Amino acid sequence: MTLLEGIDGPADLRALSEQDLPHLAADIRRFLISEVAKTGGHLGPNLGVVELTIALHRVFDSPRDTIVFDTGHQSYVHKLLTGRHDFSRLKAKGGLSGYPSRAESEHDVVENSHASTATSWAAGIARANTLSGRSHRRVVAVIGDGALTGGMAWEALNNIAADPGQPLVIVVNDNGRSYSPTIGGLADHLAALRTNPRYEAALEWGRRALRRAPGGETLFRALHAAKEGVKDVLAPQVLFADLGLKYLGPVDGHDLPALQETLRLAHGYGGPVVVHAITAKGRGYGPAEADEAEQFHVVGPIDPVTGRSLKASVLDWTSVFAEEVTALGARRRDLVTISAAMRGPVGLDRFAEAFPTRFFDVGIAEQHAVTMAAGMAMGGLHPVIALYATFLNRAYDQVLLDLALHRLPVTIVLDRAGITGSDGPSHNGMWDLSMLGTVPGLRVAAPRDAATLRVLLGEAIEVDDAPTVLRYPKGTVGADIPALDRVDGLDVLHRPTPTDGEDHATDVLLISVGAMAAACLAAAELLHGHGISTTVIDPRWVLPVPASITALAVRHRHVVTVEDNSRAGGVGQAVSGLLREAGLDMPLLNLAIPRCFPEHASRNELLAEMGLTGPGIARATTGWISHHNTTSAIGYPTTNPMSGRR
Amino acid sequence: MTLLEGIDGPADLRALSEQDLPHLAADIRRFLISEVAKTGGHLGPNLGVVELTIALHRVFDSPRDTIVFDTGHQSYVHKLLTGRHDFSRLKAKGGLSGYPSRAESEHDVVENSHASTATSWAAGIARANTLSGRSHRRVVAVIGDGALTGGMAWEALNNIAADPGQPLVIVVNDNGRSYSPTIGGLADHLAALRTNPRYEAALEWGRRALRRAPGGETLFRALHAAKEGVKDVLAPQVLFADLGLKYLGPVDGHDLPALQETLRLAHGYGGPVVVHAITAKGRGYGPAEADEAEQFHVVGPIDPVTGRSLKASVLDWTSVFAEEVTALGARRRDLVTISAAMRGPVGLDRFAEAFPTRFFDVGIAEQHAVTMAAGMAMGGLHPVIALYATFLNRAYDQVLLDLALHRLPVTIVLDRAGITGSDGPSHNGMWDLSMLGTVPGLRVAAPRDAATLRVLLGEAIEVDDAPTVLRYPKGTVGADIPALDRVDGLDVLHRPTPTDGEDHATDVLLISVGAMAAACLAAAELLHGHGISTTVIDPRWVLPVPASITALAVRHRHVVTVEDNSRAGGVGQAVSGLLREAGLDMPLLNLAIPRCFPEHASRNELLAEMGLTGPGIARATTGWISHHNTTSAIGYPTTNPMSGRR
Repeated sequence: MTLLEGIDGPADLRALSEQDLPHLAADIRRFLISEVAKTGGHLGPNLGVVELTIALHRVFDSPRDTIVFDTGHQSYVHKLLTGRHDFSRLKAKGGLSGYPSRAESEHDVVENSHASTATSWAAGIARANTLSGRSHRRVVAVIGDGALTGGMAWEALNNIAADPGQPLVIVVNDNGRSYSPTIGGLADHLAALRTNPRYEAALEWGRRALRRAPGGETLFRALHAAKEGVKDVLAPQVLFADLGLKYLGPVDGHDLPALQETLRLAHGYGGPVVVHAITAKGRGYGPAEADEAEQFHVVGPIDPVTGRSLKASVLDWTSVFAEEVTALGARRRDLVTISAAMRGPVGLDRFAEAFPTRFFDVGIAEQHAVTMAAGMAMGGLHPVIALYATFLNRAYDQVLLDLALHRLPVTIVLDRAGITGSDGPSHNGMWDLSMLGTVPGLRVAAPRDAATLRVLLGEAIEVDDAPTVLRYPKGTVGADIPALDRVDGLDVLHRPTPTDGEDHATDVLLISVGAMAAACLAAAELLHGHGISTTVIDPRWVLPVPASITALAVRHRHVVTVEDNSRAGGVGQAVSGLLREAGLDMPLLNLAIPRCFPEHASRNELLAEMGLTGPGIARATTGWISHHNTTSAIGYPTTNPMSGRR
Repeated sequence: MTLLEGIDGPADLRALSEQDLPHLAADIRRFLISEVAKTGGHLGPNLGVVELTIALHRVFDSPRDTIVFDTGHQSYVHKLLTGRHDFSRLKAKGGLSGYPSRAESEHDVVENSHASTATSWAAGIARANTLSGRSHRRVVAVIGDGALTGGMAWEALNNIAADPGQPLVIVVNDNGRSYSPTIGGLADHLAALRTNPRYEAALEWGRRALRRAPGGETLFRALHAAKEGVKDVLAPQVLFADLGLKYLGPVDGHDLPALQETLRLAHGYGGPVVVHAITAKGRGYGPAEADEAEQFHVVGPIDPVTGRSLKASVLDWTSVFAEEVTALGARRRDLVTISAAMRGPVGLDRFAEAFPTRFFDVGIAEQHAVTMAAGMAMGGLHPVIALYATFLNRAYDQVLLDLALHRLPVTIVLDRAGITGSDGPSHNGMWDLSMLGTVPGLRVAAPRDAATLRVLLGEAIEVDDAPTVLRYPKGTVGADIPALDRVDGLDVLHRPTPTDGEDHATDVLLISVGAMAAACLAAAELLHGHGISTTVIDPRWVLPVPASITALAVRHRHVVTVEDNSRAGGVGQAVSGLLREAGLDMPLLNLAIPRCFPEHASRNELLAEMGLTGPGIARATTGWISHHNTTSAIGYPTTNPMSGRR
């Protein structure tokens, strides 16, 4: 039995001797490499926090003490140390979540995978402890240097510093990278802290505390390489100390004795304290340590020895965008692109290499990304911001009041829109259409395939008096789906065959949004088999809903909308509003994602559960039509049909 | 003619001698006090920036150089110096906006009145200038110390510091207050910079530049009271310098020569530079300078001599909340309240005085406020966050993924929901229902009067497994509107009189949201006069829409919804979805705010323009019913009926 196999919880870990710990760390690394190689997952970040997580669970007493992992993708080691050893179905339906999950363990607290929240969570939990007479409990936030570039982390630090009585430990897991190398003034400052051996880091408190401990002064000198009296205006200053926060560090995040000693000092301090730990992403795995291109931040299945991907290369939506935006950049010198610390994942690498002065990575800072783009557009440029759809939630106010109120030509490209699945509820891009539907003047396009992605991106950057948004899903892009015809700006993808009946009395108008087109066409075939005639259209520019839909709708008996977004406030409801405003009270069925948080599973599994597949759409439509004239029963569920939480 | 009357633009200002400037400043103060006393407006902030704005327009060449005012409520002096002298209808329909307005002047750039955006705007404009070969132009962001507590300002500073080539001036207008005294580690840091005479502020660059200027060294010493060689670990450090930003200051924000000299230095510097100006809100106006309670941040009409309000005191929504939340606080020791730098305006002053350890002001930091509340709820408390509705836009992601995904009992109270009017498009609280309707598990209540506000607040804090939201409008609360009956959880406010017809075939079910109740009752009376029978209901808990509405709807021929929120994604669309899901395709009319940005005017004027009054609702309903059977024409406009921008 390995040491790791004997760990069922933090108590087992605390029972180990110091000499055992390096062996445990080695066990954990072997486990992570072999298991994540099979399933895929966030390998690099977890290899970087093996010692840090061991030290945290040795020093703090979870769940009595609370440990909050920011973003949560670095919680695999924490899962192992709290007794979760079956990684065989990591991120798959029914298997372990790739993030903390309260359903899995009492040691897991925060499930939100968006960055920069942990400091706020910790501030709230610490204050609740204090007000409830539990101030002996400790609260630890583990946050990456990249996440500190996010505005809400700063809001929290500013607020925490004003309340020196809260026992709160902020561990900065500083690997110099978020998804890609961390960028900005803060990153430079942290780098200065890391590399300047003369720097004492305002450690007066830490020094005094250490002097009191046996061997403390020696330890202090070892940890901090401190020297006396070297201060000048050119030395890096301590940003945390400026805010009034105690600062301990930097400490080597792979040195188990140093980490434990520093965390014990932090544990003993009665107020907020920052522990600055320097870690290396991918530590202990050759292919990851050699990884300059950040391929090991998150991996699919790989060969554990070489680190090479085992998946065949396929054309994905991101690659099509990457190619097209670079081509457009060559033609339009006013085109600039912006990423929020995700240039590779969103497909801006090629553009950045081709036009380095016209590419901007702003850090994990979606609010700033949008408003900076507003300023650039005011100055005559056309910015393209590429984000994961779920992260646009962070910048709703800026899209509304900086872009749209000022009618500025900025294009936002939303990758991973719709169900993403395996990364759990907070990674699904299922809110963007609802959010953007409220924004006056803004237009949203949803390409159905590679060809329309190219065309719509070109159309979007031609709009010069309003913001535009493109949204497309995660993963492989299917074969192009040509339109049979274009009617009033609407692409007609399928028409009823003559045997289906007369055109003026077709049974169903099926309105497809974006990548739902293939499923809608499959549904139309199945409906034909049931004797139901169907027209399938793709409006391409889906919000505001084109008014020309009404003219088409009146030639059909029923309207069905299909979208990969929350039903609440989505395109379907907008179509409903449009028809009502036109005085059309015809039967309308909105197929979309129910108002819930879907549990992790694959995209295809979740789409099937939600009925957003060809058979699902056909089944819902036939059931609905056959039952429509009775008001009490309808053919699709109004409550959540899935394992998701409402 | 006063000096002020001779200023038609910045060129006239620059033609004045230095000796004229104090007289001009005095003219401006006299003008502001006498004019704003008549109309109401942001008096205190503008009195604080008289000299700063004069100095800005002397040193920078607007509109060639760009000056961005953060929040914009301090732009009155800027309006005067750019030729806008008619303040007689300030903030009223057709009069001057209370904020920058591109329709008014080429000197106005940013109209968004939400805090902390100016640094991002400036970064974007500066980068556009550089990329377009206009790097000789300067971009200035004027931002308050309070707004620097907002996360996106930090995102911008971090990003700006990484790009040292951008000629960009960030003027920190530091009056030690946002709406109320600025709070947090940053505020303490700024205070230390302000008050520590030994502090040199890492001014090596500034010193060298000044030494080159005639009399520079003397000026430098005068400005900064600099002394050599006093540095130790306990001295406050320079946060801006930590980020890598050049820092100039602190400078007396009422000393015109010092201000101009410092701004000239900043103008000459080729990279980003922070100018730290110390100003006094309300400067030069006795009642405001003596104002500890911040009554002069924004005023209604006042006696210009005494500063006393000329408006009769009336019961407003905020006061009812203030009283009730304090009463609940006495009964429930787990109740805590949170404000984002607005404790007075949102009605938390009384609670804060009664329970100082259970009140938290987090600064202008809505994101942190929501997630900290999530942590507090996780720790067993019940937090009540009170915000202006429009500012909740900043925290959509946190409401969704911290509160709702974790099913945490936090109550958000939204004041100034719906049309606020006179503060222009970005202050209207017209997006909250659309945004919140997408959040799984979250429930929204809209009180119609003081009595239901009290009841619903009590109900909200009893919910222990989900977040809840209360929303109510700005201003006076009308008389209580008792329910005639309660049916399946729906308050029935009006039933058709027997002559109107049988109950099972009433013409209209009028669904009122919150404060729209009085207008709906007035409409019902008017409809009765037209022979149209009406039932008026108030669901009180409006989202998710109660399913019991369907049972009532089937006993009516038509359904009309009325809400003070954007039509897109509002309660009306949710009712539409509910009825469709129940197989009810009955005629439905959604009366709400069109998808536009309303121009500034009074709340009542805008509601009348939008048809959200008794006569407006009656007119729209009769027109719609009479035209309903023709599909081409309906009785209410589908396009924006107002002067607002789409």
